[in-house]
Amino acid sequence: MNQINRVAIVGGTHGNEFIGAYLIKKFDQFPHVIQRPSFETLTLLANPKAFKEGRRYIDKDLNRCFKSQNLQDPMLSSYEETRAKAIYQLLGLQGKSQIDVIVDLHTTTANMGLSIMLGNQCPSNLRLAAYLNSINPLVKVCWTEPHQESTLLRSLCEFGFVIEVGPVPQGVLNAELFQKTEELVYTILDYLEGCNQGIIPQTHDTLTLYQYVGVIDYPRNEHGEIQAMIHQDLQYRDYEPLNPGDPIFLTFDGKAIAYEGKSTVYPVFINEAAYYEKGIAMCLTEKQQVAIS
Amino acid sequence: MNQINRVAIVGGTHGNEFIGAYLIKKFDQFPHVIQRPSFETLTLLANPKAFKEGRRYIDKDLNRCFKSQNLQDPMLSSYEETRAKAIYQLLGLQGKSQIDVIVDLHTTTANMGLSIMLGNQCPSNLRLAAYLNSINPLVKVCWTEPHQESTLLRSLCEFGFVIEVGPVPQGVLNAELFQKTEELVYTILDYLEGCNQGIIPQTHDTLTLYQYVGVIDYPRNEHGEIQAMIHQDLQYRDYEPLNPGDPIFLTFDGKAIAYEGKSTVYPVFINEAAYYEKGIAMCLTEKQQVAIS
Repeated sequence: MNQINRVAIVGGTHGNEFIGAYLIKKFDQFPHVIQRPSFETLTLLANPKAFKEGRRYIDKDLNRCFKSQNLQDPMLSSYEETRAKAIYQLLGLQGKSQIDVIVDLHTTTANMGLSIMLGNQCPSNLRLAAYLNSINPLVKVCWTEPHQESTLLRSLCEFGFVIEVGPVPQGVLNAELFQKTEELVYTILDYLEGCNQGIIPQTHDTLTLYQYVGVIDYPRNEHGEIQAMIHQDLQYRDYEPLNPGDPIFLTFDGKAIAYEGKSTVYPVFINEAAYYEKGIAMCLTEKQQVAIS
Repeated sequence: MNQINRVAIVGGTHGNEFIGAYLIKKFDQFPHVIQRPSFETLTLLANPKAFKEGRRYIDKDLNRCFKSQNLQDPMLSSYEETRAKAIYQLLGLQGKSQIDVIVDLHTTTANMGLSIMLGNQCPSNLRLAAYLNSINPLVKVCWTEPHQESTLLRSLCEFGFVIEVGPVPQGVLNAELFQKTEELVYTILDYLEGCNQGIIPQTHDTLTLYQYVGVIDYPRNEHGEIQAMIHQDLQYRDYEPLNPGDPIFLTFDGKAIAYEGKSTVYPVFINEAAYYEKGIAMCLTEKQQVAIS
């Protein structure tokens, strides 16, 4: 692995995901906790205006604004589009002092524990994810195969990923999950320091990846209004097997709706608040094993 | 008790408290479930614009807009102030077809289960609350002594109260709590029908009330920024005894802050998302027993 010179820890990409935002504030107040001898650690409160207002975003979802074409489009002028261009500059991605690693801290109302969300399978990402999973098996790793150019902040670096932590409501700090996220950040920084020092930590040879295979929307009527909710038997069951015939929704008049897929899947982001407007009741994944080189 | 002729069930007073809002939608779709022989049941989605945007409010908290002076002030023109005046008219409170009972459905991110929130101790409110508590001891009853005129929607009727259900994140439907809230509404309607029929249901002679005695804000710096979070030992412990010396906050650098009161209290609304901006980390109550006449 190449020498790592600059690492960016990002929080508040969504203004109502408080754990990441307040971790950034803590790191700014106590910078020594994220300093490591061999690289520089930068912090970024990505959407300060949305954070101040306690909202996910002001005009549009910042974490859908990072397509390279949009970053170069002077006509895009909403708050988040402007902010995305500023972040691209701030992280030095057009200059010499380029960021080598991006860690983007998010929370979810789904019961996803500590999840590492990858947008590629570059060896650096996989090795780090395998390391985090090997020292804490509760750390799960999701992977989305890129079918088109990513719009996410993490994709500004090849060695970049999202940490999703939950369940925690929007606009709320949860002390236990705050501390777990904080520990995970320190573990990542220590790992990167070790890599720079030539100490490659031991991991397992393989890693379980939960690969995105699709999404399921809520049942809706002709006006687009939701007609059912996540079934109580599925609530909080992220990463558990969902089999054909298992209940996934409960209509408002009390009827269960079954999963109609052909094979077992592992849902994540079950009942994520921010996804109601995106037409996503849950994301489906399949388990796969990948070899760690 | 006087004959009850019109009952209003209100949801979506806060647009991101989905259980009440979607219950109203269900009741509008299946009106027979809330019809009772001896009175008319009205439904009201109180803040439709905020509900559509998935926000608590558009301009200001609707549930702080019902002071009689404000309802009569033609100069007040924000969305919620205008909406409050419309609701006052809709509920017929200036006319002949006045509402007799208001049931206002809310949710909270705090672990408050099913809570009945009273703003007065009128016998009708106390008897109903005692009945609900007697058939389901998990139903808790809070009471705020009126020190000044109420600004809440529920206060438009003497026989009026809020139902708080939690924990549920903002912008999320929880099927289990949806069904529990729905059952509670039907129990209330059946009780009111019984009263009109002259059948006074049996209750206990006394009721435990959790009386508001104050609030505690988060520790903040000179800029008003939060410096600590709810301590993990207090999280989800609504209605449990909090003793002097017990930890209530955890600072971002990991120090516990103890409760400094002089006596045991029973916190509610612990870590309610909407109260961060109101300067409330939790509300404190004291337990009292009241006789039911």
